[in-house]
Amino acid sequence: MILSLVLAVAGTGMAQELANFSRGGQRPIISPDIQGDSVTFSLKADYATVVKLSGSWLGNRPVDMTRGENNVWSVKLPLPSPEIYTYNFVVDGVAVNDPQNVLVQRDGTRYLPMLIVPGERTENYGEAKTHGTVSHPWYESKILGYSRRLTVYTPYGYENNPKKKYPVLYLLHGAGGDEEAWISMGRTAQIMDNLIEKGLAEPMIVVMPNGNPGQQAARTLNIPEKTINWRSEEYRNAYVNSLCTEIVPFIEKNFRAIPKPASRAIAGLSMGGGHTISASILYPELFDYICPLSAAGSATPEQITALKNAGVKLYFLACGDADFLFEGSKTLDKTLTEQGLDHVFFVSDGGHTWANWRLYLNTFAPKLFK
Amino acid sequence: MILSLVLAVAGTGMAQELANFSRGGQRPIISPDIQGDSVTFSLKADYATVVKLSGSWLGNRPVDMTRGENNVWSVKLPLPSPEIYTYNFVVDGVAVNDPQNVLVQRDGTRYLPMLIVPGERTENYGEAKTHGTVSHPWYESKILGYSRRLTVYTPYGYENNPKKKYPVLYLLHGAGGDEEAWISMGRTAQIMDNLIEKGLAEPMIVVMPNGNPGQQAARTLNIPEKTINWRSEEYRNAYVNSLCTEIVPFIEKNFRAIPKPASRAIAGLSMGGGHTISASILYPELFDYICPLSAAGSATPEQITALKNAGVKLYFLACGDADFLFEGSKTLDKTLTEQGLDHVFFVSDGGHTWANWRLYLNTFAPKLFK
Repeated sequence: MILSLVLAVAGTGMAQELANFSRGGQRPIISPDIQGDSVTFSLKADYATVVKLSGSWLGNRPVDMTRGENNVWSVKLPLPSPEIYTYNFVVDGVAVNDPQNVLVQRDGTRYLPMLIVPGERTENYGEAKTHGTVSHPWYESKILGYSRRLTVYTPYGYENNPKKKYPVLYLLHGAGGDEEAWISMGRTAQIMDNLIEKGLAEPMIVVMPNGNPGQQAARTLNIPEKTINWRSEEYRNAYVNSLCTEIVPFIEKNFRAIPKPASRAIAGLSMGGGHTISASILYPELFDYICPLSAAGSATPEQITALKNAGVKLYFLACGDADFLFEGSKTLDKTLTEQGLDHVFFVSDGGHTWANWRLYLNTFAPKLFK
Repeated sequence: MILSLVLAVAGTGMAQELANFSRGGQRPIISPDIQGDSVTFSLKADYATVVKLSGSWLGNRPVDMTRGENNVWSVKLPLPSPEIYTYNFVVDGVAVNDPQNVLVQRDGTRYLPMLIVPGERTENYGEAKTHGTVSHPWYESKILGYSRRLTVYTPYGYENNPKKKYPVLYLLHGAGGDEEAWISMGRTAQIMDNLIEKGLAEPMIVVMPNGNPGQQAARTLNIPEKTINWRSEEYRNAYVNSLCTEIVPFIEKNFRAIPKPASRAIAGLSMGGGHTISASILYPELFDYICPLSAAGSATPEQITALKNAGVKLYFLACGDADFLFEGSKTLDKTLTEQGLDHVFFVSDGGHTWANWRLYLNTFAPKLFK
């Protein structure tokens, strides 16, 4: 009785809090629809003139969709190789998301539907049977001048083992990201859940801070007005200092973290790779595991020697061979070799993409804390 | 140097992890742009024929936008009264979100940009100075047959006062929602942050479960295949039983909750209001604070008498006078009066909307645990 009333109201377009119903009994449109080796995308667009599909695996070549029954436009394509792709429709020149797809990632202000193509490459990107907890505590930064939001993953079992302490991976995003980037685009919770469930990675805490010092938190307009130039010499390392002298102590106070270098890892992509390198130079005793990914950063022979003397259990450098930062990674690899710092240089296909950063996390996380 | 490289790549449309840059130095389009008593919405749409603005305060009457310089379409409207509204553009008949707006709410699979109009009504809906922590633990439900995701708000100060215990509000969503509905559309974290910061509400934990027993978690496709009919007599109260005998103990074990009826409140909207009433009937000793909001549910005189005998500190019934469930709330109010159960019947303008549910939370939260 109540339900039929609610559905009747939905027809007026006035009711809120109803979207789950579209996932209920009747769903006339399924999109994306993977069947065998193909995938079909569909969108109802009554008044459109031209509807195209834009997909991250299609490069800059959106494909035409065809108007069918009831003005449902569709296109059937060969399934690309296993990976997570993003896509959207282009209706008369304007990008439109897929209203049928529950899987959506956020990149800044852009929300993009995801296509997860099953396979070996993506087997850790879907939901595991067991789940860690994702939380968003705020830490007070005296260095940056305000409280700032973190994302923290604690592994499955954390709540049920109140005496157990865990190692910590600090996982940093790039210049366009924020404290949700590794969760949303990087599938960190799913990757860690799967790796830990399979016994491939040690149960660990993963801390994902916001690496843009002028931003208090993602998706808030409460960004304090500052006259600070974060790129000035004075503030050049402000975020890395906050990370190493404020966030690390905050985590070790408020989570059951093992407060030792052998139980701390740092990894980061692009700008976060630069932060990773800077942290390892400025605080060579803090982290025993150092993983710059597609990194925007470099280190001198003297800095690498100092780091080698401080002791490093794993130096995992990764980059795509088509990445615009590949030359920098090759130079760093050479410096590491010349200074005799034992390391891994993991070179993948492709460029500066989340496909690579997910692959890197899935590859280095099993090497940590062992 | 690095930055200019990154920006160069952005032009190709291939780079990811770049969206924050649009919030940087140059932002040619600001939308929505509130100036004085008006608000202007703008969208760049090069090839569109007709662009309209649809807004929750405009009813079913989208307004035309005008093509301006560089194919930026815009419309300037009088600012509606203080409230949170949602809106989107309609480009040649298809709904499109505002790429300039960082404030987005999620309702099932729909992402909708928000317009927050400042004023007394909305002063607790924006970011406070202090912030609680929002986390997403999973609890194991033997009754429902799988692990399920919760949203938990712990108030500012929870981490810094490790001996302090807190009362708990269980806050339930409606049939179309999930465990993120009260955070995303309800602005619960902001409302609680503001109320607690101002000393208007007791610091409390707020627990927001997923009230659809067939759904493991929002935004996952890992929904176990079940042949269970959740609406059958056998499973009719399965979720409420899980809430009262599984979620409450889980919270009281894993968070510093005061495990007493006087420190437990339950509130819910629509279907969640029905769950609230059911929980109060099935477990009359569990909660001393009971708040059905725009509730889809009823109670017999005998059930109310049993509840009265169990002892209730606050019964806060709320509904909009244009709500399609208003008659049911009036009937419940009458039964409560006839059975002599002291209560508040809070009647607001309007209907079955998040505008009302935010108002109700902002109104009853200060009355809890005092």
